[in-house]
Amino acid sequence: MSPAALPDAPTFTDRRDAPFHGKDILSVRQFSRQDQEYVLRVAHEMRNLVARIGSFDLCRGKILANLFYEPSTRTSSSFAAAMERLGGSVISINEVRYSSVAKGESLPDTVRTLESYADVLVLRHPEVGAAAQAAHYCKKPVINAGDGVGEHPSQALIDLFTIREELERIDGLTVTLLGDLRYGRTVHSLARLLCSYKVTLRLVSPESLPMPPEICEELRAAGLSFTQHTELDEVLAATDVLYVTRVQKERFADVEAYEAVRGAYVITPETLRAAKPEMIVMHPFPRVGEISMDVDDDPRAAYFRQIEYGLYVRMALVAMVLGRA
Amino acid sequence: MSPAALPDAPTFTDRRDAPFHGKDILSVRQFSRQDQEYVLRVAHEMRNLVARIGSFDLCRGKILANLFYEPSTRTSSSFAAAMERLGGSVISINEVRYSSVAKGESLPDTVRTLESYADVLVLRHPEVGAAAQAAHYCKKPVINAGDGVGEHPSQALIDLFTIREELERIDGLTVTLLGDLRYGRTVHSLARLLCSYKVTLRLVSPESLPMPPEICEELRAAGLSFTQHTELDEVLAATDVLYVTRVQKERFADVEAYEAVRGAYVITPETLRAAKPEMIVMHPFPRVGEISMDVDDDPRAAYFRQIEYGLYVRMALVAMVLGRA
Amino acid sequence: MSPAALPDAPTFTDRRDAPFHGKDILSVRQFSRQDQEYVLRVAHEMRNLVARIGSFDLCRGKILANLFYEPSTRTSSSFAAAMERLGGSVISINEVRYSSVAKGESLPDTVRTLESYADVLVLRHPEVGAAAQAAHYCKKPVINAGDGVGEHPSQALIDLFTIREELERIDGLTVTLLGDLRYGRTVHSLARLLCSYKVTLRLVSPESLPMPPEICEELRAAGLSFTQHTELDEVLAATDVLYVTRVQKERFADVEAYEAVRGAYVITPETLRAAKPEMIVMHPFPRVGEISMDVDDDPRAAYFRQIEYGLYVRMALVAMVLGRA
Repeated sequence: MSPAALPDAPTFTDRRDAPFHGKDILSVRQFSRQDQEYVLRVAHEMRNLVARIGSFDLCRGKILANLFYEPSTRTSSSFAAAMERLGGSVISINEVRYSSVAKGESLPDTVRTLESYADVLVLRHPEVGAAAQAAHYCKKPVINAGDGVGEHPSQALIDLFTIREELERIDGLTVTLLGDLRYGRTVHSLARLLCSYKVTLRLVSPESLPMPPEICEELRAAGLSFTQHTELDEVLAATDVLYVTRVQKERFADVEAYEAVRGAYVITPETLRAAKPEMIVMHPFPRVGEISMDVDDDPRAAYFRQIEYGLYVRMALVAMVLGRA
Repeated sequence: MSPAALPDAPTFTDRRDAPFHGKDILSVRQFSRQDQEYVLRVAHEMRNLVARIGSFDLCRGKILANLFYEPSTRTSSSFAAAMERLGGSVISINEVRYSSVAKGESLPDTVRTLESYADVLVLRHPEVGAAAQAAHYCKKPVINAGDGVGEHPSQALIDLFTIREELERIDGLTVTLLGDLRYGRTVHSLARLLCSYKVTLRLVSPESLPMPPEICEELRAAGLSFTQHTELDEVLAATDVLYVTRVQKERFADVEAYEAVRGAYVITPETLRAAKPEMIVMHPFPRVGEISMDVDDDPRAAYFRQIEYGLYVRMALVAMVLGRA
Repeated sequence: MSPAALPDAPTFTDRRDAPFHGKDILSVRQFSRQDQEYVLRVAHEMRNLVARIGSFDLCRGKILANLFYEPSTRTSSSFAAAMERLGGSVISINEVRYSSVAKGESLPDTVRTLESYADVLVLRHPEVGAAAQAAHYCKKPVINAGDGVGEHPSQALIDLFTIREELERIDGLTVTLLGDLRYGRTVHSLARLLCSYKVTLRLVSPESLPMPPEICEELRAAGLSFTQHTELDEVLAATDVLYVTRVQKERFADVEAYEAVRGAYVITPETLRAAKPEMIVMHPFPRVGEISMDVDDDPRAAYFRQIEYGLYVRMALVAMVLGRA
């Protein structure tokens, strides 16, 4: 091309002081309280900018690769929208089962292929540790969008951001985690993040599905005040944040045990009558009956706003690892 | 971000006078003749702009979500291209069978998730009424891209636009609808739209697949002149617009009955010899033998141009509901 | 829209002198040495531009349709990233099995549909000759991204570009092709391109999988010096470019024959000890054990860089057929 045809320089340049520039986002454990506050601050700016102008060119010319070894429409759409609102582009590899991988390609080779095309990789994988393995081989930043029963750090940061945006603080709150606390990846990650704050935790679960001992140990080590319950009634009135999760049928030995628990934990307008007027109800979604649709119009139902906050947190994370925030 | 990093305002702003701003596009019934003329006028402008400059930034920074519960490459590609030629971005959820929905999520929850990410939703769903249900829950505009045997309003508007662009008028024309008039969603919607015009309709179908009585009633109520036939020969010579549709084997009791009808309605160069030199042949596509490929080079074969007109109509609809046209 | 709302003209305009403007890319046979040098030169400029600024607006407002009748994540992602780094947009039709085609639509009809939406078509198809058929019906440029055992011209140009970028010349080199030379599409295309250069070829394959006679004939006709071998040892020391391909189990009558050959051709650090210090190892990927991961950190391992070069060559081809380079 002739010199006259030389393209314009992009509008935004990398920030010299961007603390997450080039970093991977693999685990909530990597985020100090200061780091978390940085994420929440940038996500809040993203929220304001989207409200004002919808999209902008902060990551223009950058490409995000969405590499999903198992389907998660919600998460992949959210990262795609985040990148597009930042002015960047997205390559989606959602059908790994039909791809080179099906021909036997290793995760490292796939990752090294995609880093040749893209500037940041978002990985969803069924195996614990896959994100760390990918990050080891990838020169570009990797964002873990869930690896098996392992981590899903952006979800936990979204939960934290939701609490902060809705209630304007985190310290001093009483947070009740409800449902399957044994296998629920999201409540584990959120509990770990909350170790950085002065919160009171109420853990409400079926007897067979309590918070795992190692996480209780972490809570104790962090000096968090927490108690364990099987009935929501015992703690509802004092709760500021009610975090509801799904109780999966597969976790129970027999159907009756499941049905009993399931019914007991369904959130209805009735439930909310006993709750604080400024309490918020959260849910990582999708929900399958854990929260009645009759609750949706209650201002305390924060779960749809939680989805929207997810957009801002993912915009923040992507912009941060690309050195633009 | 520092103030210096604040992104530019987008080039285009919402029009105060945009009559479809924020509206859903659910049914052809919502379009008065004046509304239809508005769509045709904006689509014509889109055609001119694409011819001159290909793409432009009318909807820059906006995101369209293509939510397809059943596959339709043609429709989803067309909306995607429309949004991209308007300078916007697209999120495609084509694999609903693998998504959260497969985990039991309701349409309202899926829709409320996507409205957190996108500015406009395009929905294809196998069930009648799905688009209206989605629109009820969605704060962002919803465009119905086909709900079962129900509506597919953009297709009908494309058909109308094709007639106007090709023949420069609609009033005064003789329009012949050929094929399966009983189950064909597109001919039902087109017939309804044509009720706003002074056209003569010729309905040609196998005896077992006539236009449903309720639609004939609407035609009558609108004062439209129409007749029903089983042979194309009877009406071809006076036809200005020949709209061909597929006759599906599944609609017949036995194969011979199907083969007889099918053969009788195939459009060949021979057929066209008896037609007006300025007649146009349309088809909603895909075709499976209803029109011989030997007809493709005849200037009266308008069906490929009809596909292209589809792009302009969908650009118009998207820009209109986003308040940009 | 009011005149004030008229969109900006795109930044770049078509080059009058663009020699591939509007052309199809169907086969390596269409590239004279001069043409090849043009591609390599433009691809080199793309490499420099990407290194400096990542993405740019050379093809802004243009749409590329990725039409894949069989899955190839690597190729489709590569073309998508290429178009996005050129500032254009991408429509992906990866699921042809669920689309109109499944309803019986012909390739010509599908192609003529997509040319209404897009500015350039990239086609992957399982049948030899599909790309030529598509190009026959398509008014927009078609790029063949592999048609069965036929051609995959961009891959061969990538291989050529890799050699040139890595070793700064092609004439005078000794190129060793290793593995299944009988069925390997990539080695056939590369061998044909190399006919334009003064290279020495060493063909190393199992006895049952030699280079086909018709290609040997072409090499002879081009005056190329080449020899055939079953052992890599015989030619390794003098090799400048070692091009490794996969030997598929399915090609062998019994497992032992396969295992013997497979083991013999695996590239390890040991293998490289006998090779020139400036030799490069290439592979069209995916690899399944043909090259040990222990080789990856050797500077001679060029196969990951080869993937990256693929981006630049595809950017060049797309920009060229769109008249922008």
